[in-house]
Amino acid sequence: MVEIESKPAPRLYVTAPLAAGAAIPLESGQAHYLRTVLRRSAGEPVLLFNGRDGEWLAELDALGKASGTAVVRQCRRPQVPEPDLWLLFAPVKGDRVDFVAEKATELGVLVLQPVLTRRSVVRRVNLDRLSARAAEAAEQCGRLTVPTVRPLMRLTDALDGWEAKRRLLVCAEAGEARPLTTVLGEERERGADRGPASSWAVLVGPEGGFAADELDWLIRPPFVTPVGLGPRLLRSETAALAALAIWQALFGDGGERPPVAVRDQI
Amino acid sequence: MVEIESKPAPRLYVTAPLAAGAAIPLESGQAHYLRTVLRRSAGEPVLLFNGRDGEWLAELDALGKASGTAVVRQCRRPQVPEPDLWLLFAPVKGDRVDFVAEKATELGVLVLQPVLTRRSVVRRVNLDRLSARAAEAAEQCGRLTVPTVRPLMRLTDALDGWEAKRRLLVCAEAGEARPLTTVLGEERERGADRGPASSWAVLVGPEGGFAADELDWLIRPPFVTPVGLGPRLLRSETAALAALAIWQALFGDGGERPPVAVRDQI
Repeated sequence: MVEIESKPAPRLYVTAPLAAGAAIPLESGQAHYLRTVLRRSAGEPVLLFNGRDGEWLAELDALGKASGTAVVRQCRRPQVPEPDLWLLFAPVKGDRVDFVAEKATELGVLVLQPVLTRRSVVRRVNLDRLSARAAEAAEQCGRLTVPTVRPLMRLTDALDGWEAKRRLLVCAEAGEARPLTTVLGEERERGADRGPASSWAVLVGPEGGFAADELDWLIRPPFVTPVGLGPRLLRSETAALAALAIWQALFGDGGERPPVAVRDQI
Repeated sequence: MVEIESKPAPRLYVTAPLAAGAAIPLESGQAHYLRTVLRRSAGEPVLLFNGRDGEWLAELDALGKASGTAVVRQCRRPQVPEPDLWLLFAPVKGDRVDFVAEKATELGVLVLQPVLTRRSVVRRVNLDRLSARAAEAAEQCGRLTVPTVRPLMRLTDALDGWEAKRRLLVCAEAGEARPLTTVLGEERERGADRGPASSWAVLVGPEGGFAADELDWLIRPPFVTPVGLGPRLLRSETAALAALAIWQALFGDGGERPPVAVRDQI
């Protein structure tokens, strides 16, 4: 048994296929983190996942300043399907957008799609930075996948190319909207599929909200439902988190517990 | 009508009593913000609230670099009772604790109580900074109150002095816990009072979670219910937000819409 009780094994996202005996190359940032920040050395355990093959216990082999290898030992958790939830969000300023990527990852979204809306002030995003933040959050929260961060696109284009079976919940502070809880409760009552085969997305606007005529246009397609999140005007990133947390609680995997293998990492 | 359509009236938290004709002194930071950041001048409208007298439209009178006065005109929204929800949280590092104060304010908590737990690494909080962040969030989100930020205390002391009628939901990743949604759903079904007379609190632990024997002790009192938030290990501040959002959605004011007077501010 390579695991050392007093130091939880670091959890790393890799891209290579995982199978017993495979030697997995580590990225320079990962090698630096393990060696310099966590002070790990050859022979110590790490946990690896790649979004496809589950989570594996592995043993650090070579570990240099900017490179390293881990040899895969045994599977700890099989890959399982996750709720199919996306987040469409208008990028917000400064570190708030990083925060959206981190929290949406913890709250289990599969896709992060930044969109440009009429009142968007922030009109570019650093995809590498958002992806890195999402990968880090996935490593920490025990997920078996890392969300895909898609390139920024116009909201109009995102809706034009929408697959009709994916339901889109638009967080709307103005205009007509029913509470998110009511909408999801009705879906549950009418027996909507709550498994990973059911496809959903949440959309939040920029700090200034949606323009009135933009909202009129936006809620017209049959796959769109405008939803409310209570009487306070939430910041864009707060609305995203609240909607994702409520969706997971009522419709996603909020009823599950952290797997024992994950809790051991606490 | 003093309101100017193209520039929403800034919303300020003050401590003085609000009534028609009252001249309200502004703090130096508020005067600076209005004059230098927002470039407002005498004669322009502001909205004032103090947590007791509702929200009032007022007109800037004198406005200097570090002082100013606003004269109260008319009441826009009466004071109404808010859901009685507290957040007990182990302070986390850096700006994450500010973030907790901001987001918990947007999500409608009345009291922010920092607590020291067995595994707390951060053992002090800057109350002035947290209070300022909470006031700013309250101004922005349209609340009629600002949460009270209480001094840091030991979790054991907080529980020793607990009023038995306030239910405490402990977010627990390890140990036995039922999903928050299930617990709140049962409360609704058994007809629990969901109005402001019903008292609740959410507790989240530090980054390392609760110690095992601490959790054993913590869940013993009859007012405590351990709850789960799904299969991923949430960061402390994410757990706080998710639990508050779900509570408001299922048990608090999540079914309400922003008042028209608030939506006008978008």
